[in-house]
Amino acid sequence: MGYTDADWKAINTIRILAVDATSKANSGHPGAPMGLAPAAHVLFNKFMTFNPQNPNWVNRDRFVLSNGHGCMLQYALLHLFGYKLSLDDLKAFRQVDSITPGHPEAHDTPGIEVTTGPLGQGFANAVGLAIAQAHTGAVFNKSGYDLLSNHTYVFFGDGCAQEGVACEAASLAGHLQLGNLIAIYDDNHISIDGDIKCSFTEDVLKRFEAYGWHTQHVTKGDDDLDAIEAAIAKAKSVTDKPSVIKLTTTIGFGSKLQGTGGVHGNALKADDAKHVKQKFGFNPEESFVVPQEVYDMYHKHASEGAAAEQAWNDLFKKYQSEYKDEGAQLARRLTGKLAEGWEKSLPVWKPTDAAEATRKTSEKVLEAIHKVVPELLSGSADLTGSNNTRWKDAVDFQPPNTGIGEWTGRYLRYGVREHGMTAIMNGLSAYGTVIPAGGTFLNFVSYAAGAVRLSSLSHQRVILVATHDSIGLGEDGPTHQPIETLVHFRALPNMMVWRPADGNETSAAYYMALTSQETPSILALTRQNLPQLENSTIENAIKGGYVLIEDSSADITLVSTGSEVGICVEALKQLSDAGIKARIVSMPCVELFDAQPKEYQLKVLPDGKPILSVEVMSTLGWEKYSHEQFGLNRFGASGPYKDVYKKFEFTPEGITKRAKQTVDFYKGVNPRSPVNRAFQQIL
Amino acid sequence: MGYTDADWKAINTIRILAVDATSKANSGHPGAPMGLAPAAHVLFNKFMTFNPQNPNWVNRDRFVLSNGHGCMLQYALLHLFGYKLSLDDLKAFRQVDSITPGHPEAHDTPGIEVTTGPLGQGFANAVGLAIAQAHTGAVFNKSGYDLLSNHTYVFFGDGCAQEGVACEAASLAGHLQLGNLIAIYDDNHISIDGDIKCSFTEDVLKRFEAYGWHTQHVTKGDDDLDAIEAAIAKAKSVTDKPSVIKLTTTIGFGSKLQGTGGVHGNALKADDAKHVKQKFGFNPEESFVVPQEVYDMYHKHASEGAAAEQAWNDLFKKYQSEYKDEGAQLARRLTGKLAEGWEKSLPVWKPTDAAEATRKTSEKVLEAIHKVVPELLSGSADLTGSNNTRWKDAVDFQPPNTGIGEWTGRYLRYGVREHGMTAIMNGLSAYGTVIPAGGTFLNFVSYAAGAVRLSSLSHQRVILVATHDSIGLGEDGPTHQPIETLVHFRALPNMMVWRPADGNETSAAYYMALTSQETPSILALTRQNLPQLENSTIENAIKGGYVLIEDSSADITLVSTGSEVGICVEALKQLSDAGIKARIVSMPCVELFDAQPKEYQLKVLPDGKPILSVEVMSTLGWEKYSHEQFGLNRFGASGPYKDVYKKFEFTPEGITKRAKQTVDFYKGVNPRSPVNRAFQQIL
Repeated sequence: MGYTDADWKAINTIRILAVDATSKANSGHPGAPMGLAPAAHVLFNKFMTFNPQNPNWVNRDRFVLSNGHGCMLQYALLHLFGYKLSLDDLKAFRQVDSITPGHPEAHDTPGIEVTTGPLGQGFANAVGLAIAQAHTGAVFNKSGYDLLSNHTYVFFGDGCAQEGVACEAASLAGHLQLGNLIAIYDDNHISIDGDIKCSFTEDVLKRFEAYGWHTQHVTKGDDDLDAIEAAIAKAKSVTDKPSVIKLTTTIGFGSKLQGTGGVHGNALKADDAKHVKQKFGFNPEESFVVPQEVYDMYHKHASEGAAAEQAWNDLFKKYQSEYKDEGAQLARRLTGKLAEGWEKSLPVWKPTDAAEATRKTSEKVLEAIHKVVPELLSGSADLTGSNNTRWKDAVDFQPPNTGIGEWTGRYLRYGVREHGMTAIMNGLSAYGTVIPAGGTFLNFVSYAAGAVRLSSLSHQRVILVATHDSIGLGEDGPTHQPIETLVHFRALPNMMVWRPADGNETSAAYYMALTSQETPSILALTRQNLPQLENSTIENAIKGGYVLIEDSSADITLVSTGSEVGICVEALKQLSDAGIKARIVSMPCVELFDAQPKEYQLKVLPDGKPILSVEVMSTLGWEKYSHEQFGLNRFGASGPYKDVYKKFEFTPEGITKRAKQTVDFYKGVNPRSPVNRAFQQIL
Repeated sequence: MGYTDADWKAINTIRILAVDATSKANSGHPGAPMGLAPAAHVLFNKFMTFNPQNPNWVNRDRFVLSNGHGCMLQYALLHLFGYKLSLDDLKAFRQVDSITPGHPEAHDTPGIEVTTGPLGQGFANAVGLAIAQAHTGAVFNKSGYDLLSNHTYVFFGDGCAQEGVACEAASLAGHLQLGNLIAIYDDNHISIDGDIKCSFTEDVLKRFEAYGWHTQHVTKGDDDLDAIEAAIAKAKSVTDKPSVIKLTTTIGFGSKLQGTGGVHGNALKADDAKHVKQKFGFNPEESFVVPQEVYDMYHKHASEGAAAEQAWNDLFKKYQSEYKDEGAQLARRLTGKLAEGWEKSLPVWKPTDAAEATRKTSEKVLEAIHKVVPELLSGSADLTGSNNTRWKDAVDFQPPNTGIGEWTGRYLRYGVREHGMTAIMNGLSAYGTVIPAGGTFLNFVSYAAGAVRLSSLSHQRVILVATHDSIGLGEDGPTHQPIETLVHFRALPNMMVWRPADGNETSAAYYMALTSQETPSILALTRQNLPQLENSTIENAIKGGYVLIEDSSADITLVSTGSEVGICVEALKQLSDAGIKARIVSMPCVELFDAQPKEYQLKVLPDGKPILSVEVMSTLGWEKYSHEQFGLNRFGASGPYKDVYKKFEFTPEGITKRAKQTVDFYKGVNPRSPVNRAFQQIL
């Protein structure tokens, strides 16, 4: 309330910076920033608490721009409030090596919470941020110590509203009664194809009501700052459900083309840019001009945020002395490091231990470590009993009034929502106090590919527990049997794809997944039992690939992963009967093997003899580590898993046959190890 | 109305067949069939028209079981109505090489319309089937000739209701006012994690209302056949919107564990199976028993369906004589073959023609062929102006009352719904009279991975127009630049991934995509201009890979795709200056190259000299065709595309440098062509 010309000057400064930056880049999306500047001003300057000097302060309010193409809105705000993002950075918008890329990237730009742009993702990330706050607050807050009390705000547009990933997350947020989550829906009627009447005519607020959200409509989003403020205030007062505010705005407000698709994804024409400046009282001949009073207004708010952080730091200090354990734990969590010595809890298997599915060994790992890794939040996309992701005494994360869980609960029921789950996990990880692990079948990690990609790009420590990892799932058949999935995710930069062969390799996978602070992991685990292997150790496995069975006079190396390693071992006798000496390499994680020194790699995959890969998936990618590949370049089959393995010859006989063909083919050739390359890749 | 014991006997026979088959397999999902048998009975026997002797009759009513894990319901019905699915086939449920796999597969089992099981897909397929009917009916029906008038029915459960892909499709179906679509929501409160109260408490009907659907609730889905019938009749009478009927049922009805998760995904215990049989008046000691009166009842309905087809055939004969052109066209379309000589309309480019982005050459292909390929329905997930998928005089497919299109329109506005779009396209293709092409950015085909996989598995002729195919999209940055995407889809069996290097290769891509009746295609197209290449022809390109520039004394072969082929050509001079003679292979579609005779492959990629691949994506998979790989195994960058290419050295200089390193590395090695393999892959 009490808005003055000074507020409008700030709002128009944001608008014009968006015009200037997109004009200079001759690329980008001016429309959304121009339409959303009033709401952003009210939100940032009246409601949000943050300290630009420390973008990582844990109790800051979180802001997510799910319609990330409008990122000039966010970059302008970050600059004006005093984050380390200069006018020069704005001038370098969408240029190589700038910190102002075409869509917001969390890892490189201070003040960007999550990487957005792929539509729908940011919305779901916000749900994750809100869950993380609700959970961490419930764990650590004490009477008089409201340490974790921030809100999460998200802007989203018509595009995000249509995306399934956001729909899934919105449904779950409603179920979870996330009162700390406030979403502002930019109802501007325009998407890339023009008026949304051509494809999107549903009643969005009614849909959110159906999800259990509190809903409001601000009809004059372009100019009624009081109404915007009242709506956000009301949303904050509703603490038992998430809130959505439908904000009707004019895209590209101020442009001659306002309200049309013409301002969505292109810089304004030069004369239109001038027109906008004139309209808003700016000098049409100047660019990137910020009135000092705008800096003053925003810096004042920023300094209030800095003071708030200082007060928080004092409070936290007091907390640490009053609640030693919790204080130490929270302080530790904020560093991203796990508790000292936690890894001693990782279970170890002996070769004489019973054969077990790696989904079971994974369950044992979770059972063993969940107490020493209290930041671990497990969960599943409605496959708890299949993914084995729940330790025995786990409490569900649920609103207490449901009677089936607590806010402190560490087990998330994501529902049948793989994409939503993964995007939510990105938000959980981004909050900074928890490590999310979520289960589904490996085949359905593909449903989440859009979010998985962003786990990698934005360096989130997210763990996908991907069971039923091959035709070994048996009867469910080809619709559920991954073929293309491992190479897909192996090709994703900054992703560890694990396919452990037994219990120790499973422990190794969790060790690396939990301690790699900037890299997500996919753990591909079996439904069927696997033997505990001789020479498999955590120390070996964390190298990504290692010699499981050595033979200095070998004719061939078999390199294999997961369930096929044991079959390779089983094949040794038949191979020997066929006159072939083989050594066996287990390669549970190619990305980690790639990171080893070349000397080590050549010990594992030496020159001179052929290497045959054995993995019951697409062979693509295995040429990098082997001369010949035994795999499955077709869809699988429905049947008991042993029958299916037999059908596709993934048996000692089938391996022996191909090993023999390989040895024959390479007679006299003395092949170079595939580890030897002519040049290094750009990384 | 007027249901008798005979109806219940049929219903209980379905239930018991589901119990028997899952018991024999000791695997599968008895619960959904037992709960849905009453609704299925009413729907199939009272409402649906179909002829089991000809499952391909075009005007049959379509049925989709989106909760495909309940497929014993469908297999039982198919058997009882007399499809070519015997009792022995039911006994082979979930066994290798049976036609009754763990989830329904359209390609192999008569009467299965679409492949379901991955949740949410079937629902979206049904939307596609309904669109295809609405469109084809509008095109061909004449007064007195209601040739295409079928309904599409879909069953879906709580899992499908949660999946984003189904949410996207439901929103679009509401927008499109698909009155021919009737969905039955199995409201049984149970998913794999148990009661849905743990994750799914939204008001589903209210959500569908928000989408614009007609909604009803049948509370006694287990026993009130009259209510079920009335609801379906009402839904049929609502012709201006799709209908959903929430049907409250008891999962595993009849089992001791009915209404619990215990009957969802496991065979009943032996004593429970007996209990069920006793309860329903069957001999508990017998299995796979079908009372003759059940066969009689269902065969009677089947014979009515056969008669309906006969009447339709007569009508169609009359139509063909009265409407010669339309009649001939529909008859042709039903064969899946394109019009004779259509390919003469494919545009051809000369090397002297201007450089053009392949998204533009793609647009020119569509412009040139849309009249001679009237079954082609184009569209985009809200990127029409970027994907260039719309020919100039295209009419949108829209309900006429919107004023922005017609039912006969051939351009679909899918909205920002990539996954929904692709699953809908699978349904469009499955209908049998249209070929769908849909656009998005290549990076966002990953959002649709779940549906793309089913395009391949179920042999749908679906075309994804995937523009902005690399870092060449420039300023949008890493969030939009594919790295892992091509190898992902190359690893998918039965998928053609095209990356044309110029106009002629684009025409080749469309030629193969449109004429391959059982294989989907992804066309990866550039945003940036590419030169028209010497020696690029449609005839060459449809071989998948061919020699673009030959040099019998070459030191090295460069094999490349898309936008990098032209850079390789440009590099020839620098290579020559560096003393290197290179030949260049263009490889627009590796899958088609794989299908060529080995002799041809060896001509293209011969023995003796090193081969270097050049593609600005993950190098994974290229080891199959080359000795060394120049690619991008990291995320890209935001900036003008030429700057980004330069940053990553995808320039004549960068290629020359690596070619030299490769030639040096292979000096004296005389490498074998990667085409030579020790053994054949299982296909």
